[in-house]
Amino acid sequence: MRTSVYRKERFNAAHRLHNPLLSDAQNQEIFGKCNNPNYHGHNYEIVVKVTGDVVEQTGYVIDMKILHKILHEHIVEKFDHCNLNLDTEEFKNVNPTAENIARVCYEIIRPKIDASLDLKIYIYETERNYVEFPA
Amino acid sequence: MRTSVYRKERFNAAHRLHNPLLSDAQNQEIFGKCNNPNYHGHNYEIVVKVTGDVVEQTGYVIDMKILHKILHEHIVEKFDHCNLNLDTEEFKNVNPTAENIARVCYEIIRPKIDASLDLKIYIYETERNYVEFPA
Amino acid sequence: MRTSVYRKERFNAAHRLHNPLLSDAQNQEIFGKCNNPNYHGHNYEIVVKVTGDVVEQTGYVIDMKILHKILHEHIVEKFDHCNLNLDTEEFKNVNPTAENIARVCYEIIRPKIDASLDLKIYIYETERNYVEFPA
Amino acid sequence: MRTSVYRKERFNAAHRLHNPLLSDAQNQEIFGKCNNPNYHGHNYEIVVKVTGDVVEQTGYVIDMKILHKILHEHIVEKFDHCNLNLDTEEFKNVNPTAENIARVCYEIIRPKIDASLDLKIYIYETERNYVEFPA
Amino acid sequence: MRTSVYRKERFNAAHRLHNPLLSDAQNQEIFGKCNNPNYHGHNYEIVVKVTGDVVEQTGYVIDMKILHKILHEHIVEKFDHCNLNLDTEEFKNVNPTAENIARVCYEIIRPKIDASLDLKIYIYETERNYVEFPA
Amino acid sequence: MRTSVYRKERFNAAHRLHNPLLSDAQNQEIFGKCNNPNYHGHNYEIVVKVTGDVVEQTGYVIDMKILHKILHEHIVEKFDHCNLNLDTEEFKNVNPTAENIARVCYEIIRPKIDASLDLKIYIYETERNYVEFPA
Repeated sequence: MRTSVYRKERFNAAHRLHNPLLSDAQNQEIFGKCNNPNYHGHNYEIVVKVTGDVVEQTGYVIDMKILHKILHEHIVEKFDHCNLNLDTEEFKNVNPTAENIARVCYEIIRPKIDASLDLKIYIYETERNYVEFPA
Repeated sequence: MRTSVYRKERFNAAHRLHNPLLSDAQNQEIFGKCNNPNYHGHNYEIVVKVTGDVVEQTGYVIDMKILHKILHEHIVEKFDHCNLNLDTEEFKNVNPTAENIARVCYEIIRPKIDASLDLKIYIYETERNYVEFPA
Repeated sequence: MRTSVYRKERFNAAHRLHNPLLSDAQNQEIFGKCNNPNYHGHNYEIVVKVTGDVVEQTGYVIDMKILHKILHEHIVEKFDHCNLNLDTEEFKNVNPTAENIARVCYEIIRPKIDASLDLKIYIYETERNYVEFPA
Repeated sequence: MRTSVYRKERFNAAHRLHNPLLSDAQNQEIFGKCNNPNYHGHNYEIVVKVTGDVVEQTGYVIDMKILHKILHEHIVEKFDHCNLNLDTEEFKNVNPTAENIARVCYEIIRPKIDASLDLKIYIYETERNYVEFPA
Repeated sequence: MRTSVYRKERFNAAHRLHNPLLSDAQNQEIFGKCNNPNYHGHNYEIVVKVTGDVVEQTGYVIDMKILHKILHEHIVEKFDHCNLNLDTEEFKNVNPTAENIARVCYEIIRPKIDASLDLKIYIYETERNYVEFPA
Repeated sequence: MRTSVYRKERFNAAHRLHNPLLSDAQNQEIFGKCNNPNYHGHNYEIVVKVTGDVVEQTGYVIDMKILHKILHEHIVEKFDHCNLNLDTEEFKNVNPTAENIARVCYEIIRPKIDASLDLKIYIYETERNYVEFPA
């Protein structure tokens, strides 16, 4: 039977929900106050779930220190204290909804984790709104 | 790959665990202090998980504002500051255990969410006791 | 310099806010849905703060095991899974607002703690509403 | 003896720490990544503490529903989903540090609370960084 | 459709990560500061998830009081305020990583829960690191 | 009016409560399972509260980055993943109760904070037991 390990990190960022293919009125109707052209922000939490066999020598699925390092280098340093829409390549043409942030983080982290291990990402935008990818 | 979104709401309610088909002694034995005829209460939390494809135009699985509205109208306004046993149709003949509250909330919300989306309900009775339906 | 120690316990109870000296309409106007005659309920948290000198022999202000025992015997066993209005002497003639619950708990616990120690009570009715007595 | 009541609300906002009287290099040195010209953001929590006598008729220091209404109208609706630097009068010429946000909120709320009651504001910028005004 | 119930308990313990088949240098390299020969410790949380059909007579999947009793007798009394490496049979020859603690707890609890019910264990070592078994 | 800022950090450590001037029986009677000669452990949280005037140029009472650095260098690096009784100078002859840990942390940090600022330390041993020094 396989085991899952979870690791949580945080980053604080500004963002704006906006689809450039829609009119301003449509954007306002769909995204409401999240469409504010001057941005708003969140204390995001990312939880990474890695599933695999426990390695007998270590008693680990994956070393948490390595998982922490991957997350720090490739997620926290990239997104923390940023404006997701303006400061990142990833969200230049991608609407930074929690759903899309989770998928983008998955695509960043997936190649850095051994292919024998399954990966899932949780993004907490607030303590009341969060997402999971893949479902 | 599909994505899940979660939304949390709260309601504070009184309840009593009791099965009218059992004797008072049996009810007392099974439900203990939860059988108190004068009721006790909880700060309930409900988390709704909705799973589906991300809509390209919005970057959403489902608009959280709509999910919030459904939960407010059909769960919070119905159950908040109520006595579940006395004030609600739903628990007049259903024992308001966390398990049954989760199933009842599922049956209320399921028809209000598009059939292409999967639905799961979590009910937190306390931070130590919570349930998930369907498993 | 003195030191404070804090200990948290929990109890789940039903209650109703109501002043029998007021009319039903006045009660409804003042207490709103908290006036529901069928009660509602909460997961209450009580935090007790005890301030004094650290005893050299133990390194304690007060033994947490003793504080836990006092709280369990005189607060949790009395109020947990109760209807505060119906099942307790303390709130038969006292409106069980968080403010009054804090004062009542203070009056119960104060004589059980050495007079050289200061005492303060916090009652959390929800994570958003809480009180402190004495201020 | 007086009693304190606490009420918590939330708002999500973007901000940037910057003093226009300093050079860009000085701003960068003092505020680091918080000086990002494109802003970052937080899930802010505000806790308001009101201290006074318990009113005998109600058992309240102040009606939480009224406190909630004041906070919603004058803090949450003003700051939620805003850019504090760009979208608000309050921080046009005030650096939006947590310290200054707490003082500004105090100045907004103080005239709306009866003068016989004491007022204190807590601002949580993250779960690790928070402030209290007045101390 | 089946329902899951969750129950959380806590225990505080010391431990050290170490594989006696490896050299001291290898242990230090793999486990870092977790290899401290003098031990360190954690406030562990265990969450047990039990999945099955809701029993019509009770409205329960399993009585939480029974689940609490099993956890208290067989997990909390065994591990609380212990040194996992020195004071327990279970970890005399098993490296007490969170992954192995979860599996050991599963093996202890599995025979005590009816075979018709599914069982899953979560171990929280810190709020940032936790595991799930079986995945 | 002055302002307070709070900063939280964490460290995980083993400890044992024991007074060498008392007999083993007395130690067992006073400290119970906390006296386990093989140690147990906790996820400690330290919150530092610094009170002073807001500096006009920065909008800060004290720069949180500096406060974080002081805490990391002098508390977290010293105590994290340690056995407080065996691995530290501070608790070689001091019983590591939460009360004494708070005082020791105060004595470490006090000289590193400007004398015009007031300092208070909170130590959370568990979410149910915590202390404050000075009171």
